[in-house]
Amino acid sequence: MTPSTARITAVDTYDIRFPTSRELDGSDAMNPDPDYSAAYLILRTDAGDGLEGHGFTFTIGRGNDVQVAAIDALRGHIVGRPLDALCADPGSLNRDLIGDSQLRWLGPEKGVMHMAIGAVVNAVWDLAAKRADKPLWKLLADADPEWLVSQVDFRYIADVLTREEALGLLRRGAPDRVAREADLLRRGYPGYTTSPGWLGYSDEKLTRLARRAVADGFTQIKLKVGADLGDDIRRLRAARAAVGPDFRIAIDANQRWNVGEAIEWTKALTEFDPYWVEEPTSPDDILGHAAVRAAVAPVKVATGEHVQNRIVFKQLLQAEAIDILQIDAARVGGVNENLAILLLAAKFGIPVCPHAGGVGLCELVQHLSMFDYVALSGTTEDRVIEYVDHLHGHFENPVVMRRGHYAAPLAPGFSAEMRAASIEEYTYPDGAFWAADLVTRETAA
Amino acid sequence: MTPSTARITAVDTYDIRFPTSRELDGSDAMNPDPDYSAAYLILRTDAGDGLEGHGFTFTIGRGNDVQVAAIDALRGHIVGRPLDALCADPGSLNRDLIGDSQLRWLGPEKGVMHMAIGAVVNAVWDLAAKRADKPLWKLLADADPEWLVSQVDFRYIADVLTREEALGLLRRGAPDRVAREADLLRRGYPGYTTSPGWLGYSDEKLTRLARRAVADGFTQIKLKVGADLGDDIRRLRAARAAVGPDFRIAIDANQRWNVGEAIEWTKALTEFDPYWVEEPTSPDDILGHAAVRAAVAPVKVATGEHVQNRIVFKQLLQAEAIDILQIDAARVGGVNENLAILLLAAKFGIPVCPHAGGVGLCELVQHLSMFDYVALSGTTEDRVIEYVDHLHGHFENPVVMRRGHYAAPLAPGFSAEMRAASIEEYTYPDGAFWAADLVTRETAA
Repeated sequence: MTPSTARITAVDTYDIRFPTSRELDGSDAMNPDPDYSAAYLILRTDAGDGLEGHGFTFTIGRGNDVQVAAIDALRGHIVGRPLDALCADPGSLNRDLIGDSQLRWLGPEKGVMHMAIGAVVNAVWDLAAKRADKPLWKLLADADPEWLVSQVDFRYIADVLTREEALGLLRRGAPDRVAREADLLRRGYPGYTTSPGWLGYSDEKLTRLARRAVADGFTQIKLKVGADLGDDIRRLRAARAAVGPDFRIAIDANQRWNVGEAIEWTKALTEFDPYWVEEPTSPDDILGHAAVRAAVAPVKVATGEHVQNRIVFKQLLQAEAIDILQIDAARVGGVNENLAILLLAAKFGIPVCPHAGGVGLCELVQHLSMFDYVALSGTTEDRVIEYVDHLHGHFENPVVMRRGHYAAPLAPGFSAEMRAASIEEYTYPDGAFWAADLVTRETAA
Repeated sequence: MTPSTARITAVDTYDIRFPTSRELDGSDAMNPDPDYSAAYLILRTDAGDGLEGHGFTFTIGRGNDVQVAAIDALRGHIVGRPLDALCADPGSLNRDLIGDSQLRWLGPEKGVMHMAIGAVVNAVWDLAAKRADKPLWKLLADADPEWLVSQVDFRYIADVLTREEALGLLRRGAPDRVAREADLLRRGYPGYTTSPGWLGYSDEKLTRLARRAVADGFTQIKLKVGADLGDDIRRLRAARAAVGPDFRIAIDANQRWNVGEAIEWTKALTEFDPYWVEEPTSPDDILGHAAVRAAVAPVKVATGEHVQNRIVFKQLLQAEAIDILQIDAARVGGVNENLAILLLAAKFGIPVCPHAGGVGLCELVQHLSMFDYVALSGTTEDRVIEYVDHLHGHFENPVVMRRGHYAAPLAPGFSAEMRAASIEEYTYPDGAFWAADLVTRETAA
């Protein structure tokens, strides 16, 4: 690429909401009626190459407008940035956004403002990968370890992971990168499915979907638990009967329990051999997770989809509070912070099994796991990416599942781009779907 | 009060910003140029008694609009609520707001959305205290322990503090409440001042203000540190010379350091006998604070102004990570969550020394410490409320300092009400000050 004077010219934001609550897709013990949504942005440039950067935060409905407002608040840091420099060093933007002291007060590095930073940073990575004409996983896997390490913010984690250690971890895997990339392209990356396990589904639907998961080649399913113990026992029994004894069933409480409840409830389900218990309590409770883990072994403890940043992940590892680390592509400060988290997991030898589902989270996070396999951890053993089979059709490059594996995406970018027609239809409240919905409801009233 | 049919009729919000960055008031190692701001709300009713509930989140400028948007997102939970029931049980609103699963996704219980909840909940307490014709501290101190405990959300802290233990802590102090209230009204509550210590001040100004603090009857000052070690040594030496050897000087790094830096830097300042080191590292780093505390003793470790919720405070206490717990009136989920935090501190016997300053934080937090003294911890020993002497004139009932003590406020309410003229003048960007400022800048350009 020849150097250019092109710049970011606009950050366009969209409040996109899908009416998922009407089908009870996504229902769990804490979230009975989510409307899966995205606070979405498009970076536009004057490069004249037709390329845009797409990024988003996933939310579950109300408050998506607040999340959009937070992305809007970052606009001044982005518009006008020279494109070559930005794409050569997305970490520079990451540092500027996290370091804006006035915005930092609203976190720091957590919640609405941090997720907004993640959405913008991810959009830059989408654009950088498109300009490099590579899928993001390959851009990262091909990158020089020195450069990758320059993309990581070691503030607040340097007591546990230094820059030199990170470099060592990345260099360790370098010799076999080519062979692993070939393997990835051939086999894909293992997935597991949550589709059978939503709390709002009937036992019949659960059984049918669990059987289908086995037939589809998955080696693990996940059931939502935590609302009613009697129901959980009945549903787990049905699931275990459907999949047989040698198949992994994870359970997910979505933060429903106190520490004591988490221990008792998990033990009450142990006869069905759950593989891991996910989000047993508050994602902020590092010591609580450690207590649960010590008490429920050999059931493993997994968490991460609501863990706010690398600093909390660092402590979950330090405290030996988790067996499985679940990154989310759109909760922390974007690819840069997830690089830090993957490096922390690699240092501690803890498998990363990403959270996905929602809107576009599968599309995003597959890139991070694939990079991790090819260039960092070097293995897919005991590693699976969550898969949920809805809303993919709204994306330009939806995930492709083959025999329970994510096929490595080949299109340039971060697979973040939603179809223009979907954006138009589901923009809230003025898109075609919601406008028509309003008319329907007014007519019924 | 006779039962009424009155309801909340409106939640009016305001983006209020003061141009404090022009004087370097409030400058520290992480926040060089804050414009102290408030995302402010007024609850209006149809009771016809002229009473309103006022509440706010403190921010330092950019992003105050995002914070206002978050308060706006809560409106549907509040408008229409029956007033009697709401004021008799503010905890019911607290639970509904924290339990809104869609909004919860944006935290949970942290950052922008949680601070918005705190602002709204605090406004309800302001209104409840006005309707009871009592300052908030007295409403709380007079309350039945059973009722106070009903206002606390024990979710995620019950492993460390049960409802029964909380009740026991409140009942323990009941017999001497009357005597302590009389003492409070006579002496006030001890304060300490940060006014001399802002990083942007000259040594001469520091020395002058430190001497004035002694003359004013304070027994402690605080200096901002962490930008440059040589400067810190020079400034601490000047401060120690100004106040003499028997006067407490706290130092505050505002999260500037990694764990290792925090230990080295604090040790390098130990010759000046700092009383506590505040926010040595990330507020999220419980284990990091524990490591710092173990290494820098006998210098005490203090934190809390950026601690997101009761769950993190619980762990800071469990991990023996702090000597001093610094509540903030407007960062967590309002009075209800601060009751939980005060109870946790009382259980662990850790002194609470609130963070204040900013916009109206002194006005608010004094009520919580005074309640704590009269009805919970029963002591002011080693307890001081931060005091910073700016922006108080914008409030209807500003704090009153006498000989280094906060005089107990007597006006009904939570002292949260900003003068209407100040709201009008500093509303951003259309208030008189900012409109004129824009004209000035456009003329200069």
